[in-house]
Amino acid sequence: MTTSRPLILITNDDGIEAPGLRYLVEAVKDLGNVVVVAPEKGMSGMSHAITVREPLRVKKVREQEGLLEYSCTGTPVDAVKLGERLILKRRPDLLLSGINHGSNASVNVVYSGTMAAVIEGCIDGIPSIGYSLLDYSHHADFSACGAWVRRVAGHVLEHGLPHGICLNVNIPALPMEQIRGMKICRQADGAWEETFDVRQDPYDQEYFWLTGRFNERSNGGDTDLVALREGYVSVVPTHYDLTAHHALQRLVALGLPSDGNGLE
Amino acid sequence: MTTSRPLILITNDDGIEAPGLRYLVEAVKDLGNVVVVAPEKGMSGMSHAITVREPLRVKKVREQEGLLEYSCTGTPVDAVKLGERLILKRRPDLLLSGINHGSNASVNVVYSGTMAAVIEGCIDGIPSIGYSLLDYSHHADFSACGAWVRRVAGHVLEHGLPHGICLNVNIPALPMEQIRGMKICRQADGAWEETFDVRQDPYDQEYFWLTGRFNERSNGGDTDLVALREGYVSVVPTHYDLTAHHALQRLVALGLPSDGNGLE
Repeated sequence: MTTSRPLILITNDDGIEAPGLRYLVEAVKDLGNVVVVAPEKGMSGMSHAITVREPLRVKKVREQEGLLEYSCTGTPVDAVKLGERLILKRRPDLLLSGINHGSNASVNVVYSGTMAAVIEGCIDGIPSIGYSLLDYSHHADFSACGAWVRRVAGHVLEHGLPHGICLNVNIPALPMEQIRGMKICRQADGAWEETFDVRQDPYDQEYFWLTGRFNERSNGGDTDLVALREGYVSVVPTHYDLTAHHALQRLVALGLPSDGNGLE
Repeated sequence: MTTSRPLILITNDDGIEAPGLRYLVEAVKDLGNVVVVAPEKGMSGMSHAITVREPLRVKKVREQEGLLEYSCTGTPVDAVKLGERLILKRRPDLLLSGINHGSNASVNVVYSGTMAAVIEGCIDGIPSIGYSLLDYSHHADFSACGAWVRRVAGHVLEHGLPHGICLNVNIPALPMEQIRGMKICRQADGAWEETFDVRQDPYDQEYFWLTGRFNERSNGGDTDLVALREGYVSVVPTHYDLTAHHALQRLVALGLPSDGNGLE
């Protein structure tokens, strides 16, 4: 590999053979030297989990001009750590994750392995972007994504991102000509309402499948869910500082002491 | 159970038999009716992972006046979902998680199963508190924790918490009389710097253990890490809105369009 081209680390949470990852690699491979380090199998819903009770394994699966690919055991965040510290041994210029099969808008970002990988890169000071297409199907049509993926990645390669900020990019499942543009948004409020599908195993023991549906909590016109419904690509600047800064004073007002009061 | 007492759901990420959980149950059981739903084994570092590729199982393990306990397969967040939707079938008045064996201050909150359970409760509108003691040992001395645990839990039972806010409480590993008080803090900036411990299996294949050390990035005197070092219990108001609100305008300034610009 030449060293003057940007070094781009790519991962995902749907596994190294997922169509969304293949599409992402194709979309950006002429922007730099690409190294893929991705879970060997699907890791949806793994959030920011790391593997500490088992060792990890890595396998080189592809090598061609400007493109190296490794699969690994473990989670998307493990993949980023292995990529940075074991394989690249230097900080890449850009970390991309996805393209996720399904939405990571609103509170989905909290459960997402795709976005956890992005946040991990961000913690380590790498300009990092996660991409998701609002179509959960394995056979989703990613053809409208390429131009948007390249536009955001190219912008970030050129301008960088502020410290501690990464991007959560969601793309509506629409034909290219129906996508109206891109909007910088807030994360919409919402929650998953679970129901458990109760079954009996052949030995008369109950087991439970987690299922659920998403409930949006309307909170303004500038959220990612609103933008996506209106046909825009949503871009949420995302950070790993979970402090509710606006609540610091409010807690004091509620009577929780903010100074060195001992126990009464 | 009587129904007039508050209903308190308790979970953790170190597993139902962890001393920290036992200590938490003892500390709060006279504040209400307690239902424990906790992973059957240790789930440290699982963050906000949920189990979607396998079914879950639940087992009642203890039943006494005012205290019911269930163990489950799956993650801490699964435990909260099972507790709310399958076991309690109503929203508890308070969700407590911990006491974690080890720090969840600074960026540890992102990896923490203890705090993920708390954030899950928060998403569902339950006043939720996570407790951690800065001692990773299984034999940690939790005796200084009880008074602080009860103080924060009692306060939240009485006053509630603002929508979308939960609490991340860390307790220094000090004798009770050396703890100077409690401080409401920001999450400190920092990152884990990994090294991989490389080994060979008996079949000459390499495998890698994830290890690392934490690097604090100094960012002011009002952080949780500073408070803990000074001998205070730290309380960080925490939320699940990962939007970097302060960066919304900055991204526009960087040239990412905030309106409906199409692709050039």
